[in-house]
Amino acid sequence: MTKIGFIGLGTMGEPMAANLLRKGFEVTVYNRTPSKADALVQLGAVIAPSVAEVARSANFIITMISNDQAIREIYYGDEGLLEALSAGAIIADSSTISPDLARQLAIDAADKSAYFLDAPVTGSKPAAESGTLVFMVGGDSDVLKQVEAPLLAMGRKIIHMGPNGSGATAKLAHNTIVGINTAALIEGLSIASSGGIDAAAFLELVNSGGAASKMAELKAPKLLERDFSVQFSLELMLKDLRLSSHLSDQLGTPAPLLGAAKSLFQAADAKGFGPLDLSALAHCYEEWIGKRLAPGKQTDDK
Amino acid sequence: MTKIGFIGLGTMGEPMAANLLRKGFEVTVYNRTPSKADALVQLGAVIAPSVAEVARSANFIITMISNDQAIREIYYGDEGLLEALSAGAIIADSSTISPDLARQLAIDAADKSAYFLDAPVTGSKPAAESGTLVFMVGGDSDVLKQVEAPLLAMGRKIIHMGPNGSGATAKLAHNTIVGINTAALIEGLSIASSGGIDAAAFLELVNSGGAASKMAELKAPKLLERDFSVQFSLELMLKDLRLSSHLSDQLGTPAPLLGAAKSLFQAADAKGFGPLDLSALAHCYEEWIGKRLAPGKQTDDK
Amino acid sequence: MTKIGFIGLGTMGEPMAANLLRKGFEVTVYNRTPSKADALVQLGAVIAPSVAEVARSANFIITMISNDQAIREIYYGDEGLLEALSAGAIIADSSTISPDLARQLAIDAADKSAYFLDAPVTGSKPAAESGTLVFMVGGDSDVLKQVEAPLLAMGRKIIHMGPNGSGATAKLAHNTIVGINTAALIEGLSIASSGGIDAAAFLELVNSGGAASKMAELKAPKLLERDFSVQFSLELMLKDLRLSSHLSDQLGTPAPLLGAAKSLFQAADAKGFGPLDLSALAHCYEEWIGKRLAPGKQTDDK
Amino acid sequence: MTKIGFIGLGTMGEPMAANLLRKGFEVTVYNRTPSKADALVQLGAVIAPSVAEVARSANFIITMISNDQAIREIYYGDEGLLEALSAGAIIADSSTISPDLARQLAIDAADKSAYFLDAPVTGSKPAAESGTLVFMVGGDSDVLKQVEAPLLAMGRKIIHMGPNGSGATAKLAHNTIVGINTAALIEGLSIASSGGIDAAAFLELVNSGGAASKMAELKAPKLLERDFSVQFSLELMLKDLRLSSHLSDQLGTPAPLLGAAKSLFQAADAKGFGPLDLSALAHCYEEWIGKRLAPGKQTDDK
Repeated sequence: MTKIGFIGLGTMGEPMAANLLRKGFEVTVYNRTPSKADALVQLGAVIAPSVAEVARSANFIITMISNDQAIREIYYGDEGLLEALSAGAIIADSSTISPDLARQLAIDAADKSAYFLDAPVTGSKPAAESGTLVFMVGGDSDVLKQVEAPLLAMGRKIIHMGPNGSGATAKLAHNTIVGINTAALIEGLSIASSGGIDAAAFLELVNSGGAASKMAELKAPKLLERDFSVQFSLELMLKDLRLSSHLSDQLGTPAPLLGAAKSLFQAADAKGFGPLDLSALAHCYEEWIGKRLAPGKQTDDK
Repeated sequence: MTKIGFIGLGTMGEPMAANLLRKGFEVTVYNRTPSKADALVQLGAVIAPSVAEVARSANFIITMISNDQAIREIYYGDEGLLEALSAGAIIADSSTISPDLARQLAIDAADKSAYFLDAPVTGSKPAAESGTLVFMVGGDSDVLKQVEAPLLAMGRKIIHMGPNGSGATAKLAHNTIVGINTAALIEGLSIASSGGIDAAAFLELVNSGGAASKMAELKAPKLLERDFSVQFSLELMLKDLRLSSHLSDQLGTPAPLLGAAKSLFQAADAKGFGPLDLSALAHCYEEWIGKRLAPGKQTDDK
Repeated sequence: MTKIGFIGLGTMGEPMAANLLRKGFEVTVYNRTPSKADALVQLGAVIAPSVAEVARSANFIITMISNDQAIREIYYGDEGLLEALSAGAIIADSSTISPDLARQLAIDAADKSAYFLDAPVTGSKPAAESGTLVFMVGGDSDVLKQVEAPLLAMGRKIIHMGPNGSGATAKLAHNTIVGINTAALIEGLSIASSGGIDAAAFLELVNSGGAASKMAELKAPKLLERDFSVQFSLELMLKDLRLSSHLSDQLGTPAPLLGAAKSLFQAADAKGFGPLDLSALAHCYEEWIGKRLAPGKQTDDK
Repeated sequence: MTKIGFIGLGTMGEPMAANLLRKGFEVTVYNRTPSKADALVQLGAVIAPSVAEVARSANFIITMISNDQAIREIYYGDEGLLEALSAGAIIADSSTISPDLARQLAIDAADKSAYFLDAPVTGSKPAAESGTLVFMVGGDSDVLKQVEAPLLAMGRKIIHMGPNGSGATAKLAHNTIVGINTAALIEGLSIASSGGIDAAAFLELVNSGGAASKMAELKAPKLLERDFSVQFSLELMLKDLRLSSHLSDQLGTPAPLLGAAKSLFQAADAKGFGPLDLSALAHCYEEWIGKRLAPGKQTDDK
């Protein structure tokens, strides 16, 4: 029976671990702030006092952390994951990291006779809660087969993208499209709005026509209500665009739209909108066109 | 009873007129190349020998033409539409034209005691055939009500965008998003592909995740099979992006993504891909990354 | 002997007319606001009460006006230039206008048996004052020869660019470079400045090295002193970039840097910096990097 | 008396070392390919068999190498520079490297009680030959004073930019402007050329007007003669733009023009123009406008 370790109980990690527990998996969890595990303990989780303890207690370990630097601390720190890992263990990292780091982690896991999968996800908080994430996985396909059951407890689909690093690469290329589509939606709405078109009518059109997209579907209500609470934060999107820009530089792939979108999110981040939802990019365009893109909720002015 | 005139029987106009006939409307048609009306005559259409004759025989006239210049000839030419128009007639133009021209046509129709609606559509050939277009309409809402029945014979939805020019404005803003989303899809696929990811796996991911869009859904099979037969031609997309760029200049709305996308489609058009589907933008990225984005059909190499 | 008419006595036109007078030419002037001609009258200018009167009194007429629309009024208005023109007269327009309009004016002048040259200039107010403008001329080279003497009274060089429209085309292509070079200077300074480099040291480097440019030479002191008084206004630069963008669309020439620069100046204009010098684009970058690019004069804070 | 060591005798390094020798400095040189030192030996240079030998024989060592990776090998390799360095020695690196690496080298030199200066230059091969380079230096100003004499044997000016890393930062910001100015020149020429303007006339205009720049001065003759022999190679420019893009990402500075220019040079590099002069970017625009920007030398067609 798979004994699962779960490291990183943030916006995404906590509901992912909860789904594992609900499906009957035995899960040991670790988070820097232990109180975040309280709800999981109700569902049967065991709390480990350290990363190393998770590594020693589990044969499949999932990490879900914010960025390359945090991942390095978890994996390479004193009492870190790699040091404490048992031979034969499998680690899957579901964070969005650079392909270079993913390949390095795979090499270093192999040195411990263990296995690494880069396994980032698409889908934000609601998909994590409902267990409908999509996993894109880089690594050995036989290793992947051994952990399909727990992954499908958290998601609705697994796509094997190729060898180690391929999951991370696919995630960055995918999120490049997400970022550009979101900015395109806001840029189109800005043209319509400065041309006197009502935002609700225009967004209905977008969602009915060739301009429809997952981002338009998710962000139209937020733009109309000016509700910039986080589904996916602008600063995390910017982080991904920077990693993707660095990757396309390494690969020698011209990416002019990525470059233009990165500048836009960078400008928005510089103005302090980083912690809000990425749709808060709308603030930059609003400043440019000199008016609000949508009236927002009535309560706005109270 | 509404007597309908239909001018312009191209890729879109012919199936639109056919749907009017199938729903029982009386339709007089005109096309520069009369043979294009043959199938419509089977459905009961009357062929008029001139634009003016259409104007004289109908109280609701629809025009579906390629660009501003062709529209000017139809409306303002000798024996043109405006000259021959009856008082009280309604004209709806479903072409994609500049908002300035739409407003001018409305003024000139009013001078003849007639009414003009700018009524462009979203949806390409298949939607025209199945009668599932979406009309975005600029003009008087009472006038629009009088022609809802024939419009709904050709489409599944009508969105009233505001006064004259609003339909044209909404169309350009909408197609700006379409163009950028398509280019974003191809740019993301290029990064994935030059990073060694299989195109089919990546496009499955896109359509499963946050990067999903109507364009990704329509173009993924075309990109995989390298089938660049026209759904919406690259040169028409470029025409729309130019009109949109001109509009955003007039409105003073910065549109950096539109600018970047316009340059990309312009480069593709300059290389001779204009008459193909807009997804043929892939050729530019393929040249950059030095390999095909997808293997294409086996028959490619025969 | 050439009798010169001069229409448009703004920032550029007034010192240009003064140089003609100082070199001994007979000059009749017209300006919408007649008081602007006071200094010229001291130098011997005759004031005409209307555009038509200038046309009737001169055989070489120079127009120096702000934009296409104002040019149209002067040339085509009631009692306009073209109507009153004598056979054999030569007109040179030194404004920055679209090549299409330049070609149209040439055709309409020819209809009156007169000649038109599009003759825009490079060089701003100081060059107009010192008579060191450079004229780039589109039109017949024999016609140009007849007016070389008065043009060289105002400038140091005449470059014949080709047939009518070529002067206007060259001006837009030239100013595209001016706009991009200026924005590049500010973008480079922003990177240096957010990296902790002193602005004075960096601008000294720029002017000593491969990054040197006429714009860097002119704008470095302004950036250091935060003196955004007008040499060439940001809104006029934006007007030129829009005309150039429209021209490159007509020609089918991809111009990605022009597109990116246009968006930047548009954003700066939207924030109200249009009437300042084009170097006021610095304000946008300052907002992005969250600090001043240079300390400015001590008197700033008084 | 300063004993100088010089490592890296490429296009730039060889003439720089020659100038030191001509001014009477004692110079020990090292290059991976020793034959490159032949001419220097004639001028009195001593050849060292290894990097370490240079380090042991000199109290001021200059490195002039192509990129971060090569620098790492020279400084950190077995028998590398840092290992063999004497206490009190000064190293100046004149390569273009990332500011992060410059700061790291300074820290690691300090550990050996030695001093590091990041001292990149502006000016290409001709300036290296004539001893008219400009040094931009990051590091301690007292240390800099000790090596001013040899630096001024190779250059005409030294600008102290700030603490370690500042020289590297200034160089990247400077070269960002160089790259954009060059691309702007070619983009403007493309618009002029597709508008029918003669390239020689247009480039004369550019060099006479507000669009003038050091790059226009250097590249106009090359563009006219289609002589793309290397002054500064396109692939080195691309390397610098990538480093600058990475730097601006770290600093959080939006740099939309840098992004657009990087994509252009990347596309040109992907087509195989990397080893040519950076003005070979012209080939991309020529393909877009479907004709040559300039006729080139007559011998082209032979």
